[in-house]
Formats: sequence, C-alpha cells, structure tokens
Amino acid sequence: MPNLSNRGLEMPESPIRKLVPYAEAAKKKGRTVYHLNIGQPDIETPQVAIEAVKNIDLNVIEYSHSAGIETYRKGLTDYYNKFGLDVSFENILVTTGGSEALLFAFNSCLNAGDEVIIPEPFYANYNGFATTAGVNVVPVTASINDGFALPPIEEFEKLITKKTKAILICNPGNPTGYLYSKEELETLRDIVKKHDLYLIADEVYREFCYDGKTHYSVFNLEGVDENIIVIDSVSKRYSMCGARIGAFISKNTKLTATALKYAQARLSPPTLGQIAGEAALQTPQSYFDKVINEYVDRRNILIKGLNKIEGVKCPSPGGAFYVIAELPVQNAENFCQWLLEDFEYNNQTVMIAPAAGFYATKDLGVREVRIAYVLNKDALKNAIECLNQALKVYPEIIVQQTKLVQ
Amino acid sequence: MPNLSNRGLEMPESPIRKLVPYAEAAKKKGRTVYHLNIGQPDIETPQVAIEAVKNIDLNVIEYSHSAGIETYRKGLTDYYNKFGLDVSFENILVTTGGSEALLFAFNSCLNAGDEVIIPEPFYANYNGFATTAGVNVVPVTASINDGFALPPIEEFEKLITKKTKAILICNPGNPTGYLYSKEELETLRDIVKKHDLYLIADEVYREFCYDGKTHYSVFNLEGVDENIIVIDSVSKRYSMCGARIGAFISKNTKLTATALKYAQARLSPPTLGQIAGEAALQTPQSYFDKVINEYVDRRNILIKGLNKIEGVKCPSPGGAFYVIAELPVQNAENFCQWLLEDFEYNNQTVMIAPAAGFYATKDLGVREVRIAYVLNKDALKNAIECLNQALKVYPEIIVQQTKLVQ
Repeated sequence: MPNLSNRGLEMPESPIRKLVPYAEAAKKKGRTVYHLNIGQPDIETPQVAIEAVKNIDLNVIEYSHSAGIETYRKGLTDYYNKFGLDVSFENILVTTGGSEALLFAFNSCLNAGDEVIIPEPFYANYNGFATTAGVNVVPVTASINDGFALPPIEEFEKLITKKTKAILICNPGNPTGYLYSKEELETLRDIVKKHDLYLIADEVYREFCYDGKTHYSVFNLEGVDENIIVIDSVSKRYSMCGARIGAFISKNTKLTATALKYAQARLSPPTLGQIAGEAALQTPQSYFDKVINEYVDRRNILIKGLNKIEGVKCPSPGGAFYVIAELPVQNAENFCQWLLEDFEYNNQTVMIAPAAGFYATKDLGVREVRIAYVLNKDALKNAIECLNQALKVYPEIIVQQTKLVQ
Repeated sequence: MPNLSNRGLEMPESPIRKLVPYAEAAKKKGRTVYHLNIGQPDIETPQVAIEAVKNIDLNVIEYSHSAGIETYRKGLTDYYNKFGLDVSFENILVTTGGSEALLFAFNSCLNAGDEVIIPEPFYANYNGFATTAGVNVVPVTASINDGFALPPIEEFEKLITKKTKAILICNPGNPTGYLYSKEELETLRDIVKKHDLYLIADEVYREFCYDGKTHYSVFNLEGVDENIIVIDSVSKRYSMCGARIGAFISKNTKLTATALKYAQARLSPPTLGQIAGEAALQTPQSYFDKVINEYVDRRNILIKGLNKIEGVKCPSPGGAFYVIAELPVQNAENFCQWLLEDFEYNNQTVMIAPAAGFYATKDLGVREVRIAYVLNKDALKNAIECLNQALKVYPEIIVQQTKLVQ
C-alpha cells in the first residue's frame, strides 16, 4: 500500500475520545458509565433554536454566503455589542464550529514551521489543529498550585523567537476553567504589542463566569485591534454542539479577507446550524441565569467532593465547566482505562480524560485528569462516589502509600 | 500589524465567487442576474429530508460520533451496496461536505511538498485545498477538442516523480461534465498500481450520468483497494448543498484510522445535516428519474444554444451539470465582469465563471468559461439569449473579427 503521510502519523489521537472503545465495552457489560470526559453538556438547547429548525420553510437547503448568512452575522454583531464589544458584521466570518475558526486563524497568520505560544494545559485539540497546519506549539506552563493563573510575563518572553507569530489563549479556559483577569489580559496585550504578534482568544465559554466575576474580552484591549482574533462557537453557549457553528472575528480587515479565502474554498458553513444559531440569539437571559446557577452548583459539588478524597487536589475555577484535578495515582491514563475496564461500584463507573494530552511538555500532567461537569447533580454525585471508591482499591496509588511508608 | 502568512497570501480566491460583488451591484441596479456561476441547483431537496429536519425530536443538539452517526453510516453502506460497491460502514467517515473529506485525504496521504496529479481543468477549490495542505498540484491537461477525455497514460507517467503521491479525479467531472469510461479508469488503476499511488476519486455526481451511460466507480477497480479513496457528498445528489455533509471512504483501514484522527480533532460533522442526509437515503428513484430528465433537457438546451452562437465551442458532456465552453473573447474573466458591470439585455444579465481558475497551467482556459446548468429551462433560455446578445456587442471579440479581417 502507499505510505501514509508523516503528518498523518504524527496527528495526535484525541485524549478525550481515545478511551471510547473501553467505555463502549463497559456499557456492553451492562455498566452505567458517567461521561465526564467530554464537553457535551446535558443542558437543553434553547427551545427557540429547536423551534426554528422545526419550522424551516425551505424547498432547497442551499449554500449560504461563505462568510455566513448576513442576517445571522448582523445578529451576532448585536450580541457582541451587548457585551460591549465593538465589532461590525464585516468583522465576522461564520465557521463550522470553533475548530474551523482556529484552523483559519492558524493558516492565515502562521506559516508551516512558525510557532504559537499556548499556556498549558490547553484544549487538547489545539495540538491536532497545530499538526494539521504544520505549526509548532510552544507551551508556557501554568501550575495547578496557583489554580492555572497566567504564567508571568518573563516566562512568555523567554520563549519568543523569530518564529513566534501568535499567542493562543482560551478564556475561560478549557481544560482548567481558569478565568483571566483584566490585568492578565493587559499583560498579554503588552507582549503582543511589543513583539507584533497575533493574540488568538478562544472565548467560547464567555457566558460561563462564576462567583460574581465577569468576562473581560480581548476585544476590550486597546491599541491592538490588528493583532486580535476571537474564536467563538455556539456549541457550549446554547448547548448545541452538534450545530457545528462558530465564528472567526477580527477587526484586521486584511486578515479577515485572507480567512475568507479559506471560507470560500469550503463554500459555506452549515445552513441548518446557522438557522438554529440565528434563532438562539433570541434566547432569554433567564435561560443563562438558570444554566449558570446549575453549573455553579455542579462545580461546587465536584470541587468539594474531589478535595475530600485522600490525595486529590483540585482548584476551584472561575468559569467554563471543566476542572483539572491531580490524583494520587502514578499514571492517570492507566487509571482512566482501569476505571472502564476493571472497576465498577454498584455496576457504575466513570469516564474522565487523562490530562497529559492537554500538555505539550512531555511528562507533565501524568497524574492529572480533566473532569467536565456536564451531568446533572445526582449523576455527578454518583460519579464522584465512584471515583472515591475507585481510589480506595486502585492498585497503583502513590500518595497515601508513600505517606504510609514514611 | 503582524504579517499575514505566505500561504494565506497565496491562497487562491475562488474564481466561482470572486465576481460576486459585481453581481450584487448589478442586482442593486434592478437587473435580473442569472446565476450559472455556481453549482447551487434550483432543484428541490427531497421532501423526506426536509420533513426529517422539521420533525427532529431532540432536547439537545449534540455532537455525533466523530465518524458520523452510526445508523447513517450503515444506511450509506446500503446505498453504496445498491450501486454494487462493496464497502462496509467502518470504511466510511461522515465529513463536513466533500471539502473536508478531500482535506482529510490530502493530510493523511501527502506531506507538505508532495505532489498530486490532477487532470485539468479541475474543480477550482482543489487548488485551495492543496494550498491549505501545502500540497503541489501537478496538472495533466485535458483538451476541449476531445471533450476533456482522460489524457493518455504517457502524459501521466511523464509527470510522476518521487514526490508524486496521488492522482485526483472528479467523475463525472466538475467543471467539464466528462464521464470517465471503465477503460479510462482501468488505465488509472494501472498507473496507481505500478507507482504505488493513491487514487482519490470525487464521485459526488455519481447519479448524474446521461445518454444511457452508467457510472463506473473506482471501487469497482480490482487489486487496488488500499490505494482508493472516494470523496462523496449529499450536496448535489439531493440538492442540499447547505447541509454540509460528505464522506471519506476507503477500504485501507490504516488510512481510515489516520483520517479519523483529523475527524476527532474537529469533534463531529453537523448533526442536523446528518439527520437530513440519513432521511434522504429514502429518496424514491422517481425523484432521481425526474431530476435527471430535467438536467438532460437543460444540457441539451444549453449545448444547442451555445454552439449556435458564432465562435462558441462547447462539447456535450456525459454527466454532472456543468459545461466548459470556449468563447470568442480575448479574456473570459474580463468578459464575465463586463457582463455584470456593463451589459444588460431587457434588464437581464448572466453570471458565469471564468475557467482560467480551473486550470493550474498558466494561460490555459483564458477564453473558456464554466457554465452550471442549475436553473430551470426558461431561465436557462433567457440566460443563453443574454450571452448571445452580449457576444454581439462585446468590444473584445476575437474570432469573428479575425475571420472578417481574413
């Protein structure tokens, strides 16, 4: 057979999805598997979006404009304006999920071999998109010990080379849930201004900020309009991940024109998803209030439950719906697989994502997992109890045993 | 501002869409513009697909499996089996349009700098996908004088280097409408077998074969299962271009596993489009019979009408819904722009695609245009009459004037 490409071989498997066959096998044994491994919330899609799809009045499901349906782009403008973000519809390209927006950004801003600095741990699929675009990820390490705050400016500056073209952040963060402060973002502004870099901000969890904190967008930063790209998506905002609708947003008109060429090549983002997305703009604030209360409750249950377990460390994040927890195990990936293959508690088990795949630095995060609090409170409590019981019997526990030996 | 990437600058503008602003301006002047420039048919989407969308019973529009909804993949298997193509659902990855399937193929099979041989003229966006993937397109030129038949085997072999990894065809062809014979495909089989290349076949127009001819798929070729990739799409088959649902199909399990990693990175193809696509599998044969009769009528009207015009040459293709016509003009792109900017006949004009963008060889196709017969017969007749009138008054006519001078 002909050879596969090297880049295809190097393409990372999704750490979020690679344990799926073990989960399927567990379910075939009749076990309940609590899926805390993937950001697929159980929250209902707003009724207004579902109804718009049910009421489509089309004889032909046509292509839209490559940049997206104009009324939807104008509706998005109003949405951003309400957040105090001064963008016009010409700054917005509707994309097939945030994924495609990020690929457009990488391809338009970076050549193959160029470097993007990303605070780690980061959303694992950034590695996949970087590999696809031939871009090198240069990680700057954030630590669980300070809740994954932005590393100091010196740490970034140490990493900047002639190949550095961009910094990519996710705010609030997947997988850490960390919400960057205005001051942290101003630090980033100073770096990108000084070194003339792009600042790509994945802000898909904008609404999900807790404890009275509010989201500070990179679009609020002054003097760097040409450097800023926002990646957005309806997936989490309206719990409609399957719509596959995102956005690439920049006030840099040359950049947007370049990204549009990539958009034209693939013709059109999904029309049905755009219809759902446009309708979802009418979602009432009461929906978000309810959803955010729900996520805060879940987060509190999860953080409290996890930190009660001997040897588990888990900071309480200010946004999104993920946490990174450190477990008292030698290798979290082995543990995650064992949970699915060899463990059950009342015929239940739990699927979580090993965190090593969220780091670019080798050997970091091997004892950490990402947990998405995307299930209802009862399911979440059962899942935490599963983890608690599992860690009592897992053979490769380290912290407690070390303590005992000492 | 930071620099754009070189590859972003090199990314070609879509020749199909770049005249759009001129068309918009013409419409603002109150002119009727007949859109024969883009493969967006006016044919109705099958009712069974529209109804499936209207009747969705979902509380959450969720991600599907990265490879697509399993019942849909199994339904697709039945669809291919009916055509005598022996593929199983594990060979099929559902993609976001044929576009994404081709990107998966390029990324999985070719490294940056590798070469793909494509008979030209070819679907212009192949250039965009090749640029995106850093792949070099090596054209082998087909000629309007023999209706764009497959160039002889020697022409391919002359072009094969160490960098050659694949041959890409579109069958029936966009933009030529040419339907490859069994013998032509066997020639390709012999080349890919001898040189251990991939053969990527875009078969999205499979149903649209005319004059009693039938489609011969690359999956019918023997002894090259590991070399074959089929790119498919529901866009044209069911006139649902906006669904953005395609497929990557290969019996090479290592290749499919590699492509799946790209699919996992972007999480899921559009869920709503898949629901429409799965339902569309139930489209009755009577729908296709009617649509194919309609396209044959349109093709006949178009070919007859075009060839009647002094200096126009247009072969009659065996499939799809495009023709390439040679016009008696010095530069077809200027002519296409002039049609929109400066011409009207009874307050109507026509938008067609300059064909130079469908060639990779410089200076080829400058007098040719691609015309998509995607409008009803009356509109098509009006559009042809517009072209006829336009060519009577266009200032840069060449053939007739040359004749007069002689």
